[in-house]
Amino acid sequence: MDATLPRKALFDIPNGVIYLDGNSLGPLPKAVPAQVEKAMQSEWGGQLIKGWNTCGWMAQPGLVGNRTARLIGADDGSVMMGDTLSIKVFQALAAALKLRPDRRVILSDSGNFPSDLYMAEGLIDTVANDYDLKIVAPDKVRGAIDDTVAVVMLTHVDYRSGRMHDMAGLTKAAHRAGAVMLWDLAHSAGAVPVDLTACQAEFAVGCTYKYLNGGPGAPAFIYVRPDLIETVEPALAGWLGHDRPFAFEQGYRPAPSIDRMRVGTPPVLQMTALEAALTVWDDVDMADVRIQSITLADLFIREVEAHCPTLRLASPRNAAERGSQVSFAHPDGYAIMQALIARGVIGDFRAPDLIRFGITPLYLDKDDILAAVGILRQILDSDAWKDPEYQKKQAVT
Amino acid sequence: MDATLPRKALFDIPNGVIYLDGNSLGPLPKAVPAQVEKAMQSEWGGQLIKGWNTCGWMAQPGLVGNRTARLIGADDGSVMMGDTLSIKVFQALAAALKLRPDRRVILSDSGNFPSDLYMAEGLIDTVANDYDLKIVAPDKVRGAIDDTVAVVMLTHVDYRSGRMHDMAGLTKAAHRAGAVMLWDLAHSAGAVPVDLTACQAEFAVGCTYKYLNGGPGAPAFIYVRPDLIETVEPALAGWLGHDRPFAFEQGYRPAPSIDRMRVGTPPVLQMTALEAALTVWDDVDMADVRIQSITLADLFIREVEAHCPTLRLASPRNAAERGSQVSFAHPDGYAIMQALIARGVIGDFRAPDLIRFGITPLYLDKDDILAAVGILRQILDSDAWKDPEYQKKQAVT
Repeated sequence: MDATLPRKALFDIPNGVIYLDGNSLGPLPKAVPAQVEKAMQSEWGGQLIKGWNTCGWMAQPGLVGNRTARLIGADDGSVMMGDTLSIKVFQALAAALKLRPDRRVILSDSGNFPSDLYMAEGLIDTVANDYDLKIVAPDKVRGAIDDTVAVVMLTHVDYRSGRMHDMAGLTKAAHRAGAVMLWDLAHSAGAVPVDLTACQAEFAVGCTYKYLNGGPGAPAFIYVRPDLIETVEPALAGWLGHDRPFAFEQGYRPAPSIDRMRVGTPPVLQMTALEAALTVWDDVDMADVRIQSITLADLFIREVEAHCPTLRLASPRNAAERGSQVSFAHPDGYAIMQALIARGVIGDFRAPDLIRFGITPLYLDKDDILAAVGILRQILDSDAWKDPEYQKKQAVT
Repeated sequence: MDATLPRKALFDIPNGVIYLDGNSLGPLPKAVPAQVEKAMQSEWGGQLIKGWNTCGWMAQPGLVGNRTARLIGADDGSVMMGDTLSIKVFQALAAALKLRPDRRVILSDSGNFPSDLYMAEGLIDTVANDYDLKIVAPDKVRGAIDDTVAVVMLTHVDYRSGRMHDMAGLTKAAHRAGAVMLWDLAHSAGAVPVDLTACQAEFAVGCTYKYLNGGPGAPAFIYVRPDLIETVEPALAGWLGHDRPFAFEQGYRPAPSIDRMRVGTPPVLQMTALEAALTVWDDVDMADVRIQSITLADLFIREVEAHCPTLRLASPRNAAERGSQVSFAHPDGYAIMQALIARGVIGDFRAPDLIRFGITPLYLDKDDILAAVGILRQILDSDAWKDPEYQKKQAVT
């Protein structure tokens, strides 16, 4: 089954562009602008303050949470949208530490996205005590889980290589040692099947501007395992997490639902863009996305290795150990990527030498993959990337 | 001078509406939809991931911060936009406590917005030590400032009564006692003149969806006194506050600028709406806004007291002690406000008995004030508010 092609028409991708950077910022779903326009003109403009009631703005983060839940194997009422991924990491990590007050180690790995590690550092500095952030190599995590570990905090799919952790196995190992498990699904939600309910992880967080196409700066999500929702303590105890925010009580009493993970006033325009973007996923089965993702990624690897011998595969060859991106290494990767982008093949670069390609079956097909490799091959064969123009650094790379 | 009327045309206010709730959610500036449309279609849609470079998305929070700075008496480079006000309170408070490591009291007042107090509670619970959140009556703050106080955290203008603190005097008192001063300017930015540079407060935070008309869930701001920017420690140590976010270093090193108060990926659509909304303030002098605000508020009080004797003024009568809102108390305030809203006069209600009216000279004039009082008088004289329809509670009030 090729479930992908029909969905390509749901995206607004510029002519001549083959977009292989959906792992960084998903393209614009066509459904988004009209919904955001409506949120501005008839809702904000027409309803003014009444919009909080008449337009459902207050309930929206929970409803969008339920839409997201389906894609990560979570139940309704276990996922809340808001803030940014970094904030959600802080929130989950602080709550996780409270669940293991007698332990002092946060275990993570060097493949984690730096912001997750920075937020852990910031939390430790704020708590100002003897916590230890222990960072090991990704393949050493399992062996490092012992009964000193309070929380194992990992990003499921590595943002550079696409290497994917064994979510079920590592969660089980964490639980065997009495540790809490926190997964960052930034490169997983909408990319690979995730079954939070089955794996029993306590917390998960993620962003929605990558594979979920929510737009630049789209709200993040946090998942709390249902049996813990009524007991986790929110460190970021904002009024919208209060049991009765509009009673304006002086003391904080967390809501008895996933609402306690809310903090401040939700970004209604951005939430509306995300809500519209998620309609693209209606009736999409993540198992079908996965099959197609592997087919396209394997094709991409085979074709690049056949035609571009100077590139070295930097992702796992085994599809079962790989998320939905493929990275190749080349000492001049930066210039090669700039040359690709100039020719409409958009991926991105991560220092020191990685070129990354997001494989997103909702709007990519085999023809796109073959065309992209054809252009890559041409750039390499002709040394086109040596043009000094392609050496110029961008502010954000 | 009546600087107000020319600006009314810059807002999209529905026909028949007199909008007196700009202290809760400002109306839609006409400049907003086209800019957000552009950010969606030509920027996100057309530029895709390149937008971070080609459309200036990364620099936008700082540039919008500078636009906001002018309205609160702050220098360029001292204000950063992002997240929500609750998050910014947490960030400022955590940084403030670090500046006084030998002290254990956070002093606030019962007039503070609950979320500020909740965030302080959450921070204390997270730090898990012997901090004390001391809450006194607003008029007892000055007397409660002593050398045990690490931080004085106050909202400048009370969200219920509009009572305004003496910012310069209280900041001086805090500093005399060796405490750090943190002001919440939610009901001040764009409402009353604020001079952060002159008052020398260390931190200020605020939201932009009230008097600044940034839209529902618009990004918040944080101010750090310029001499402290390079030393304050960010508790929320997100990657965009890093000195070199795109170097993806494993350890956190804060940027040597107000950028260190950034956390995660900025909400580009929402930031664009705010940026467009702030153009309304071009060439507006807050001193002129203040003069007109007092004229309109004094007129409103005079007229209500002359024609609606069952309402009791719940705001300071002295304009110098009042922000830019007027509240009246009535045991049936809720129903009265619903009757007003049904007739196009939009204010809001705060339990147990307050009806609130925001005075926003950018889009209100004397005729609006007189017309609003006329409708209020008619509702009271005719007992129209006793209609059972107006007793029904809304989810968000």
